Amino acid sequence: MKDFNHSVTHYFKQEAEQSIHYLSIDCVVFGFHEGRIRVLLLRWKGTSEWSLPGGFIRKAESVDAAAVRILRERTGLQQIFLQQFHIFGDAVRYNQEDTWQRIGLPVDLSKWSERTISLGYYALVEYAEVTPRPDLLTDACDWWSLEDLPNLLFDHNRIIAVALENLRRQLPYQPVSHLLPETFTMPELQRLYETILGRPLDARNFYKKVQASGILQRTDERRKGTPYKSPYLYRFDPGVYPEVVREGSLSFP
Amino acid sequence: MKDFNHSVTHYFKQEAEQSIHYLSIDCVVFGFHEGRIRVLLLRWKGTSEWSLPGGFIRKAESVDAAAVRILRERTGLQQIFLQQFHIFGDAVRYNQEDTWQRIGLPVDLSKWSERTISLGYYALVEYAEVTPRPDLLTDACDWWSLEDLPNLLFDHNRIIAVALENLRRQLPYQPVSHLLPETFTMPELQRLYETILGRPLDARNFYKKVQASGILQRTDERRKGTPYKSPYLYRFDPGVYPEVVREGSLSFP
Repeated sequence: MKDFNHSVTHYFKQEAEQSIHYLSIDCVVFGFHEGRIRVLLLRWKGTSEWSLPGGFIRKAESVDAAAVRILRERTGLQQIFLQQFHIFGDAVRYNQEDTWQRIGLPVDLSKWSERTISLGYYALVEYAEVTPRPDLLTDACDWWSLEDLPNLLFDHNRIIAVALENLRRQLPYQPVSHLLPETFTMPELQRLYETILGRPLDARNFYKKVQASGILQRTDERRKGTPYKSPYLYRFDPGVYPEVVREGSLSFP
Repeated sequence: MKDFNHSVTHYFKQEAEQSIHYLSIDCVVFGFHEGRIRVLLLRWKGTSEWSLPGGFIRKAESVDAAAVRILRERTGLQQIFLQQFHIFGDAVRYNQEDTWQRIGLPVDLSKWSERTISLGYYALVEYAEVTPRPDLLTDACDWWSLEDLPNLLFDHNRIIAVALENLRRQLPYQPVSHLLPETFTMPELQRLYETILGRPLDARNFYKKVQASGILQRTDERRKGTPYKSPYLYRFDPGVYPEVVREGSLSFP
């Protein structure tokens, strides 16, 4: 634990020297698994307290590059497309003393960046393809279902709620392909849309709209193992899907 | 001019003391007039150089409140609903020496906040109802059509382009009522949507969708002065429109 305190002190001292004060980045990484949206959280070392992966911006680093670096350093995730969604800029975002007590660290360590304005980024990733690993400040990096979130550190419950709201509004412009495996059935795609939007969609209308958009290629394979039906597997058409996302032309209002 | 230099020096010295370094806010104020989207620009004193109204965040001020204050101080506009839309965070956003030369000020004045990350806000306002006035750094505050924008200071042409792109994407969630007078005709409303979206809409389909949404109340008055037609005037239904905006349920994909 003494070693841990030493490395944490070193970490924050380094950040205070190299980073822009008053400013931080928090990353909301969404995955989709077994019909549920999940979010990637870190558990602070020696505690049962969870937070989003976050960090600070180097003095001469672009903000978008900082978000990618922070996510990589704190979770091991690489080559993730992160997107800005909101600035959390209230003068008082959370109780600082209380928060640092919960993670068992002296609040002084955070004073160099007292009052942080946080820039929120989110990412959509395929659950099965990423292997998160914790960093020096944390001892676990796990997926949590949105329905079962614990009481997170800082204002991170709010940040996740705002991220989800933005994802819903921006859904026509989001490449949801990142949330699915290479091939999937039409009901699986519908379930993804329903989960993000938080409401059921009419299956026939969904099928018609998706077909009309041309974003999918049907493969010759079918999903085995269901007793009465074996639905076809589809994949996104790489020649069509990016354009449809750019135009935002597939939506379910 | 000596007085001006004195007050500018004082302004930047004060900002350096009171504000968060490395961070600024820029405001894109959209108005709609004669079938065109306009944007509010400031001309820097003694020059022919234009920029967006912008400024800095006080150390203990919420970012949203800072945006409102900055817009008021720099343009005289009050009670404007401003909305975050993007973080401009490239390590080098524009050529600083060149920019300060264009506005005839020593670049040293800006050095306290070298490399500013700008938080972009936009607002929709009714053109006829605002009376912009310049501040101490500027000698004009005027509306410019998007088609005729000059080569702006900083990276403000880009900021306006990104604001417009965000407005288009977020249109179902934006209260476009702010862009119109109290009453208006259906073709005028259609023209507003077409101008923002940058493409024509089918008049019959537009009318049907708007009617079905229930957002409008028809008044008993008609627009006079057109030789063959005198279309009815409408107003937004305050009991319906806010809900439709909140849900984003009226869209023209």
